Amino acid sequence: MQVQNGQLDVEGALDKLRILPYEDLGFAKLDHHRDLRTGFPEVIYAPGKTPEQLTQIARSMTKSSSKVLITRAGPEAYAAIKEVLPGARYNELARTIVLKHGEEAPPIPGVLIVAAGTADLPVAEEAAITAELMGNGVERLWDVGVAGVHRLLEHLSMLQKARVIVAVAGMEGALPSLVSGLVSAPVIAVPTSVGYGASFQGLAALLAMLNGCSPGIAVVNIDNGFGAGYMAGTINLTGSGTSRD
Amino acid sequence: MQVQNGQLDVEGALDKLRILPYEDLGFAKLDHHRDLRTGFPEVIYAPGKTPEQLTQIARSMTKSSSKVLITRAGPEAYAAIKEVLPGARYNELARTIVLKHGEEAPPIPGVLIVAAGTADLPVAEEAAITAELMGNGVERLWDVGVAGVHRLLEHLSMLQKARVIVAVAGMEGALPSLVSGLVSAPVIAVPTSVGYGASFQGLAALLAMLNGCSPGIAVVNIDNGFGAGYMAGTINLTGSGTSRD
Amino acid sequence: MQVQNGQLDVEGALDKLRILPYEDLGFAKLDHHRDLRTGFPEVIYAPGKTPEQLTQIARSMTKSSSKVLITRAGPEAYAAIKEVLPGARYNELARTIVLKHGEEAPPIPGVLIVAAGTADLPVAEEAAITAELMGNGVERLWDVGVAGVHRLLEHLSMLQKARVIVAVAGMEGALPSLVSGLVSAPVIAVPTSVGYGASFQGLAALLAMLNGCSPGIAVVNIDNGFGAGYMAGTINLTGSGTSRD
Amino acid sequence: MQVQNGQLDVEGALDKLRILPYEDLGFAKLDHHRDLRTGFPEVIYAPGKTPEQLTQIARSMTKSSSKVLITRAGPEAYAAIKEVLPGARYNELARTIVLKHGEEAPPIPGVLIVAAGTADLPVAEEAAITAELMGNGVERLWDVGVAGVHRLLEHLSMLQKARVIVAVAGMEGALPSLVSGLVSAPVIAVPTSVGYGASFQGLAALLAMLNGCSPGIAVVNIDNGFGAGYMAGTINLTGSGTSRD
Amino acid sequence: MQVQNGQLDVEGALDKLRILPYEDLGFAKLDHHRDLRTGFPEVIYAPGKTPEQLTQIARSMTKSSSKVLITRAGPEAYAAIKEVLPGARYNELARTIVLKHGEEAPPIPGVLIVAAGTADLPVAEEAAITAELMGNGVERLWDVGVAGVHRLLEHLSMLQKARVIVAVAGMEGALPSLVSGLVSAPVIAVPTSVGYGASFQGLAALLAMLNGCSPGIAVVNIDNGFGAGYMAGTINLTGSGTSRD
Amino acid sequence: MQVQNGQLDVEGALDKLRILPYEDLGFAKLDHHRDLRTGFPEVIYAPGKTPEQLTQIARSMTKSSSKVLITRAGPEAYAAIKEVLPGARYNELARTIVLKHGEEAPPIPGVLIVAAGTADLPVAEEAAITAELMGNGVERLWDVGVAGVHRLLEHLSMLQKARVIVAVAGMEGALPSLVSGLVSAPVIAVPTSVGYGASFQGLAALLAMLNGCSPGIAVVNIDNGFGAGYMAGTINLTGSGTSRD
Amino acid sequence: MQVQNGQLDVEGALDKLRILPYEDLGFAKLDHHRDLRTGFPEVIYAPGKTPEQLTQIARSMTKSSSKVLITRAGPEAYAAIKEVLPGARYNELARTIVLKHGEEAPPIPGVLIVAAGTADLPVAEEAAITAELMGNGVERLWDVGVAGVHRLLEHLSMLQKARVIVAVAGMEGALPSLVSGLVSAPVIAVPTSVGYGASFQGLAALLAMLNGCSPGIAVVNIDNGFGAGYMAGTINLTGSGTSRD
Amino acid sequence: MQVQNGQLDVEGALDKLRILPYEDLGFAKLDHHRDLRTGFPEVIYAPGKTPEQLTQIARSMTKSSSKVLITRAGPEAYAAIKEVLPGARYNELARTIVLKHGEEAPPIPGVLIVAAGTADLPVAEEAAITAELMGNGVERLWDVGVAGVHRLLEHLSMLQKARVIVAVAGMEGALPSLVSGLVSAPVIAVPTSVGYGASFQGLAALLAMLNGCSPGIAVVNIDNGFGAGYMAGTINLTGSGTSRD
Repeated sequence: MQVQNGQLDVEGALDKLRILPYEDLGFAKLDHHRDLRTGFPEVIYAPGKTPEQLTQIARSMTKSSSKVLITRAGPEAYAAIKEVLPGARYNELARTIVLKHGEEAPPIPGVLIVAAGTADLPVAEEAAITAELMGNGVERLWDVGVAGVHRLLEHLSMLQKARVIVAVAGMEGALPSLVSGLVSAPVIAVPTSVGYGASFQGLAALLAMLNGCSPGIAVVNIDNGFGAGYMAGTINLTGSGTSRD
Repeated sequence: MQVQNGQLDVEGALDKLRILPYEDLGFAKLDHHRDLRTGFPEVIYAPGKTPEQLTQIARSMTKSSSKVLITRAGPEAYAAIKEVLPGARYNELARTIVLKHGEEAPPIPGVLIVAAGTADLPVAEEAAITAELMGNGVERLWDVGVAGVHRLLEHLSMLQKARVIVAVAGMEGALPSLVSGLVSAPVIAVPTSVGYGASFQGLAALLAMLNGCSPGIAVVNIDNGFGAGYMAGTINLTGSGTSRD
Repeated sequence: MQVQNGQLDVEGALDKLRILPYEDLGFAKLDHHRDLRTGFPEVIYAPGKTPEQLTQIARSMTKSSSKVLITRAGPEAYAAIKEVLPGARYNELARTIVLKHGEEAPPIPGVLIVAAGTADLPVAEEAAITAELMGNGVERLWDVGVAGVHRLLEHLSMLQKARVIVAVAGMEGALPSLVSGLVSAPVIAVPTSVGYGASFQGLAALLAMLNGCSPGIAVVNIDNGFGAGYMAGTINLTGSGTSRD
Repeated sequence: MQVQNGQLDVEGALDKLRILPYEDLGFAKLDHHRDLRTGFPEVIYAPGKTPEQLTQIARSMTKSSSKVLITRAGPEAYAAIKEVLPGARYNELARTIVLKHGEEAPPIPGVLIVAAGTADLPVAEEAAITAELMGNGVERLWDVGVAGVHRLLEHLSMLQKARVIVAVAGMEGALPSLVSGLVSAPVIAVPTSVGYGASFQGLAALLAMLNGCSPGIAVVNIDNGFGAGYMAGTINLTGSGTSRD
Repeated sequence: MQVQNGQLDVEGALDKLRILPYEDLGFAKLDHHRDLRTGFPEVIYAPGKTPEQLTQIARSMTKSSSKVLITRAGPEAYAAIKEVLPGARYNELARTIVLKHGEEAPPIPGVLIVAAGTADLPVAEEAAITAELMGNGVERLWDVGVAGVHRLLEHLSMLQKARVIVAVAGMEGALPSLVSGLVSAPVIAVPTSVGYGASFQGLAALLAMLNGCSPGIAVVNIDNGFGAGYMAGTINLTGSGTSRD
Repeated sequence: MQVQNGQLDVEGALDKLRILPYEDLGFAKLDHHRDLRTGFPEVIYAPGKTPEQLTQIARSMTKSSSKVLITRAGPEAYAAIKEVLPGARYNELARTIVLKHGEEAPPIPGVLIVAAGTADLPVAEEAAITAELMGNGVERLWDVGVAGVHRLLEHLSMLQKARVIVAVAGMEGALPSLVSGLVSAPVIAVPTSVGYGASFQGLAALLAMLNGCSPGIAVVNIDNGFGAGYMAGTINLTGSGTSRD
Repeated sequence: MQVQNGQLDVEGALDKLRILPYEDLGFAKLDHHRDLRTGFPEVIYAPGKTPEQLTQIARSMTKSSSKVLITRAGPEAYAAIKEVLPGARYNELARTIVLKHGEEAPPIPGVLIVAAGTADLPVAEEAAITAELMGNGVERLWDVGVAGVHRLLEHLSMLQKARVIVAVAGMEGALPSLVSGLVSAPVIAVPTSVGYGASFQGLAALLAMLNGCSPGIAVVNIDNGFGAGYMAGTINLTGSGTSRD
Repeated sequence: MQVQNGQLDVEGALDKLRILPYEDLGFAKLDHHRDLRTGFPEVIYAPGKTPEQLTQIARSMTKSSSKVLITRAGPEAYAAIKEVLPGARYNELARTIVLKHGEEAPPIPGVLIVAAGTADLPVAEEAAITAELMGNGVERLWDVGVAGVHRLLEHLSMLQKARVIVAVAGMEGALPSLVSGLVSAPVIAVPTSVGYGASFQGLAALLAMLNGCSPGIAVVNIDNGFGAGYMAGTINLTGSGTSRD
């Protein structure tokens, strides 16, 4: 009987955990070293936070991180932040606020975002912005739903050139399967809540994507453009040899 | 204020209802005139009935109808029926028993059945046999799921020639949307229970098909090949000017 | 072993795909040849689009198509469109905007829309307008729910005269089964979100319709009057020998 | 401020509770006075009990009650009970075992059981046997589903004569609504698990019945023939002035 | 083989159907003889109807019926109706409008409405008003939920005196089971949407009530006080020998 | 800005983690110090493990722990284990195997298990055995469902004497609410899969218990007698001052 | 055969029930002795009650109880109550109003509330306030979700010191499992509706918590901070020997 | 207005599609060039296929591909295939059959599979075998569920070394969130159907994983080890610069 006590590895773990201080704002603990640990600052999810809280968190974060992303932010939140942090940029479609300072490396190409319909664009754009902020070069291919398959086929070489693809669709959620059958790159599928009746706020698309008959697909939460962009960006950077550890 | 008393129309309804005698077998009322009224004999759904009950019902039905269809029948049911009604024919894949006598008119072409995967074939074949028994000419196109879209596109002219299409698919259920985007004919979508995990016995495909982003699709129950074949057959015969009233 | 390389058929497919240019508005790709391919212009689903976007899309579409349909449009969208395209007509009940120019062929009779209750009328009327715009002659039969079956029976000859029937109902969704048992024509069933409590926004009616015990029924999405009208119109035109290819 | 201390009523409650001894078999507490309190002995639900346990419970119950009902019992349970209690009678269709001794009053007519299809008969027959055992006169009307509405209308006077109706149906569950629109008597609706695919083991019928658009319907659990027969029997006996208190 | 042609019974059915004229208001068919046929005028469900439509329907109905009930009506609907029909009475809690004229027979006692919590009162009161309007004498017992079982037991004699009981509860929906175990009268259970989180808008209470371990319970739709009151009123009138046929 | 680096506490955590070696059987890592850490050995869930695997795990565990519990074990598993570990005891109803050696402290009284029906006993007994094995004194009160509330009230003093109560019920799951309204002790509610139709394998009882209108209830998974017994045992031991740290 | 008539115990029950008068406000029955019976006054759930009703109930309750808690109360309710009962205190985050008078015993330490994210704080704070009002000493540990496990481990000694822990989390609801694996105290899990898409308003967290792989967890309703605080407070007081009977 | 006719790109697409012949076995179309197109042969899903069909498909596939994978295969399928293709290797735990010939390149390290419990191993092993067959070097880390977080932390360096991680878990499905918070590599989450009661065959774990609060997670279907292994393998090969195009 071999009994492992594993002391060394746990000590190694401690060494890593030990160097992870964080800042306590009272209503939130900011994890400044997350940037180092996982390669990207914690994103701020705006709903349920006041413009003042958002501003305070954003200001604190910009001290330790060169890039901050706020998602699902309304124009009034942007107005408040802009006053304090004039470098903030707002994307109306994606409802994101981006804060960047310092020099940026040239983007690493390889991420392609495809969207089925115009109503899926806010989610798709959120994915694109997220991946770009991580340092990826992102291409966009909009309005290529399965009802007009020739629109998609026309861009076959763009599809086959990508290192990783994010496919965004609501309603019957068939786009990821179709795309995945045409390429060898991994596909991150994003169901959207676009649809009505028996779409049940994106459930139909979610189930369809989980049951995609073509391998090489993995799925994120409904409307989770950020999660998909983050996942695709991580894969692309890993693939490019751009270590983030 | 116009008050309709509608007496005449109801009397007309009575005249039609009056001529609808039926036969009472004790455990079932056979509706011999349904054939006249809706153009096709009542189908016999085998599950839950003993071979003896199936034989008795089938024998009674063949007296008043030239065509009888038994669905979801096992080989032992077929063996029992064959002894009494030697003209019965069995299709192992579709699990159907068909009884026909008398002369048949030449089939009216126009129905196409497409199936996504080999596991969908029992349902697809049930649809094909049903439509054929109604007098339709039926073409079959198997194994053309969305993961290999070129297989489907290769048969574009066959698709565009059909007057009505039945599209059978499990898993993510994307085939009907794809097909419907390529043709102007109506598409009857049949979700199958093929799949596992989050397919939830066909629920994923059902929801996807109900949310198809291409118009010209209507959906029948999960695994309901008979219903789809009947619906498509009815549409094709209506279209061909072959009245069944 | 027979290996098909299918080269010819795919080339045929290419010939068809090749002639499908589209117009890119930036936020939407307009598929001007869809009209040719599937017999009807792409419908515009208004929710989530600004009056300005709707106006821009509609104006572009009227250039290449003689008929444009906007569904689920509010009065303010109509007001905006009317200023630019004075020929636009609004139906308050169905919330549709219709744009037509050029001469119209006489309508092909054969479509009947039946609705169970007054609350189902917006959906039923959307179906009727859609089928009419496609060139079908449409009859309407309102308020014939199953709780007063004599109201339906009184119109038995109207029911039996139709080539295709759209049956619209909420709550327990029994109307399509009842209608289908009385006719030989195909029935397109539309569940509505009318009801409360355990209707679960139309789920009860949807499931009931999918489980209809009478064959010859196929179902569209909850509240999808457009889809049902389109499907019924397609079936009727096919039946009438009015090719749309 | 009026403070009720309610002492008297609670004492009256105690007087009633006090006289309710029961018998303890170890694995079950038999409530011999339930017969007096609610007018009917506790029914024995067979699944999960061994033939020996069923026999022991039944034997004990026959000591204090003139009527015992065992539901969902298989033939082997019947064989075991018959040896000990030779007066036991088995109904194969309903899978019920009935034990009766002593004289019976003439049945009180008024209960009608209607069933949509032959597959619904086990549930319908269980309802009928339950109501009969309570002392009700029961009429049966089988195989009158909505797909052939004339079969039901033909028996309109039987329907309108009943004091209370049990309507049993699977699939789309439309029978109770249809029946209730034709009569003034209360209708007890029983959804059955008959159906496949999107019937979800009776859920479709259950939801449809709860959403019946005609008032005067109340619903029991899926396949709960006993519960429906008991409810209908109670209503009929109440109505006939046959007090059971 | 016995073939029934059933001609006579269908003719009898016709005689009954023939005498059922109705009035067509364009947007609704009013079924003036429903009163005769089922013993109560069609109730008007207010949501989705304008005050003007409600007024028009109510005015037409009062011509042929001595009693009209409007459910789920807001104060503004009442204000509009009151101007035209000054006899209208409004109940704020139940949100019902009642119109009555002519002499009334003395109420037939026997209906008891019990409610679990104060939040269930709107539904309970709707049930009470409905039963009263049908001519029943109604007792009310509020705020007797299972968390304080002594409140219920204190009223044991009131419970045991009732001929039929309506039990209204949200949250865990246990009241009907508890009540039914104490009485021999039938219990109509009404789940309400009261609760939060995993009550899922009344689903928890609905399922609990359908699974009540005590027989003699039947269930209506979530929040359907009208349906429960109607059902209970019908049972009580039937029981009292007050025929409504 | 206060930055915590938390070094000390993490080191304390390490000290605790460091002393947690485990044994690796290849197919399972046995956590011998879990006993020390959480006061009870890891339970073995039998389904999906062969008798040989169970025997091997049990033998290994008895080396480091004085008490081992195997749940959901069939008789054949017991036979295999008994050969190697003759002290093993089997409970047929609960399907548990218990291994104990060494001296036991006298049990700490305070746990009461109540069960609604006989079909709930396997789950209830599993809870009782679990709590007993932890060192608790356990009382059992069987067959006290809400349909006969007097059976429960009769044992009011037993209920009010308990320090913690486990309430086990299927079907409508009302027992925990009723019990909790009578006592001040915490109630652990266990829904069971007992029931049929709309019980949906215990979902109805689960939802009812989560919505209990009386505070002082918390719920474990469906049929999870072990979890409930463990929770109740933990609460009772904590309450008795019997530290397990 | 042993027949228990249980007379004595039921009389004992009566003696307890007899002394439970209550006050009838018309729209609510106030159970003044509940305080004695279960150790805590009935909490007032504010939604659906007017400020006037809340004030009236609160004023009445303060007469018989030294502590009153109102949950989910908005600022306008607080304003109304404060005018009449100036001692009322409001917590904006938890949306609770607390009324206390008389001397308080020193709090009994032992309750720890942990929350995964800032959006879970309203629910967590409601739990804390409830437990404090019962006389418990409460520690709070905020923002320790599983995505940064070192934040939780850093507070290992605080976790292991608690006698009972409330773990509040939305989204994937993993916190209770993680916490329970580190301690021997019982854990009360509270799913919150925090999340979007496939969180389905807290369903994802609820199911996760019910399936926690670590024993010693029980779950309350979604967002039910009050219920969790009450349960934890009860367990802690029981454990401390502070009887509330 | 810029009108794209897109002729060139579609021709390019044709060139690619043109070279995709396939083999028609009658019951299946084998897509021999899929290997070239997507880098991996079509996997064969065994359930529903006879050993003879599996053998025939496998034999045909080995002609054009150097690697064939059969999933969910029983021992009898393996026995049949082994006779014809003696090089076939079977993994009992994963239930996979693998066929390989020709030389293999050295595996590209970077894939780590972690599994929460022993019951999750069949799914985890299927993932590992799939990734290995694609040419990846795979490390395995079994039995590191969240209930014993120190087991996972002990292997922190193994986790942080991986280029892509597959995390397999049933029950509450918390493992992927926990893992993802510790690393910067992408995590593919696989919910398993391990659990009982409210796990609803893996639904609980699926929803939890979709709601993971840590970014960098994407989810595949329940029990879909193959899909996860394929996705992870694709990501790792992409990252390693091993082009498969």
